[in-house]
Amino acid sequence: MAVEALVFDVFGTCVDWRTGVAMEIARVANAKGIALDPVRFADAWRGRYQPAMEVIRSGRRSYTELDLLHRENLDATLAAFAVDRHFTGRDRTELNRAWEKLPPWQDVVPGLSRLKTLFIIAPCSNGSIALMTRLARYGSLPWDCILGAGIARAYKPDPRVYLASCAALQLSPESVMMVAAHNRDLEAARGAGLMTAFIPRPDEFGEGGSAETTPSSDWDHVAQDFGGLATQLGC
Amino acid sequence: MAVEALVFDVFGTCVDWRTGVAMEIARVANAKGIALDPVRFADAWRGRYQPAMEVIRSGRRSYTELDLLHRENLDATLAAFAVDRHFTGRDRTELNRAWEKLPPWQDVVPGLSRLKTLFIIAPCSNGSIALMTRLARYGSLPWDCILGAGIARAYKPDPRVYLASCAALQLSPESVMMVAAHNRDLEAARGAGLMTAFIPRPDEFGEGGSAETTPSSDWDHVAQDFGGLATQLGC
Repeated sequence: MAVEALVFDVFGTCVDWRTGVAMEIARVANAKGIALDPVRFADAWRGRYQPAMEVIRSGRRSYTELDLLHRENLDATLAAFAVDRHFTGRDRTELNRAWEKLPPWQDVVPGLSRLKTLFIIAPCSNGSIALMTRLARYGSLPWDCILGAGIARAYKPDPRVYLASCAALQLSPESVMMVAAHNRDLEAARGAGLMTAFIPRPDEFGEGGSAETTPSSDWDHVAQDFGGLATQLGC
Repeated sequence: MAVEALVFDVFGTCVDWRTGVAMEIARVANAKGIALDPVRFADAWRGRYQPAMEVIRSGRRSYTELDLLHRENLDATLAAFAVDRHFTGRDRTELNRAWEKLPPWQDVVPGLSRLKTLFIIAPCSNGSIALMTRLARYGSLPWDCILGAGIARAYKPDPRVYLASCAALQLSPESVMMVAAHNRDLEAARGAGLMTAFIPRPDEFGEGGSAETTPSSDWDHVAQDFGGLATQLGC
């Protein structure tokens, strides 16, 4: 069965969340005259991401959109860095929007534009529809629609997220390909019956960081960037 | 509160469903050598649209995506025109895709492109995510995301469709404007707290047809086309 749609992980795979969040923290800290290591803060904030979703995946909390989890994690991170007295509620709402202003990796917009000529393209992210929509507007990501957690009301790697995304397009999983920089995401997608493509993002956690640079399995495609994937897929 | 998003009715407001469906019927009838008035057939097929949704609105049937309702209505229309023996299941699946290939009115793509510079733009249609996605690709409609019935799992004018669309964007209804060529749609949107814009589409049902050409109420905006709306909104 021919692939008709490509669905993408976003944080790390399409956009450089670490640089984007750190830049916004640096801007705000500078404006307030606070000493704060922006990259360490970004990593700490992001460090609370998986544990917050795990509470929902395990059923201990009902589905809550990522924007609110990000906000709760921001509050906790500000407290951990002992700077929370500097941030009003309004400051926090504004800083939380850092996640809507993340730069795409350089190959992403031209690569997606090529891929879009032959395939439906959509995010299959843990971000909400609101967050994915604003992030797409910020980075000019030419999605055809927004799929993922917001449609499924569950978090990857829960198979329902992949399956709901395919169902929303009225496509069977084998005609949808998941594209991600994270092996675990692809393992879950394959488990749900989707095709898979691995694109390493060696700088996701900065130079010398802990990014996954090698495929953990025989994914259907492995390419260096979205342009390489487009070439492999005949775009 | 400032408007941040514009949500659009699609069939009739953005695209000329009657011409598009009739052209596809004419093509198929011609290929099969069947005498069939394509415009009468299109009107008859579309005539079953509201009654089919009404069964769902009234709770007599659970939410069923519009694509399947279109298919059931096609079967019934083929029977009513006494041509059903000419159409295999595969033919019907193919003809049902007529709804994915509808031409936008001439002002729609340039108008949406202007509106998108200042506002989030999304369909708030009774069409499914799958249908809206394919229709957008066919007509190059530059949506930021797909909202509407597919998100709400309900049919307009049920207020849940408008409210779920606002909620998906994390916006309050008063910062979202519904744009439609149908007064009933705007009445329901206003009832749910949204802003409203009326764009008449005098040719929706052909020349001299029964299209609504005048606003039934004091909608927040009335414009001749999407370009006029963009000008009114400062785009």
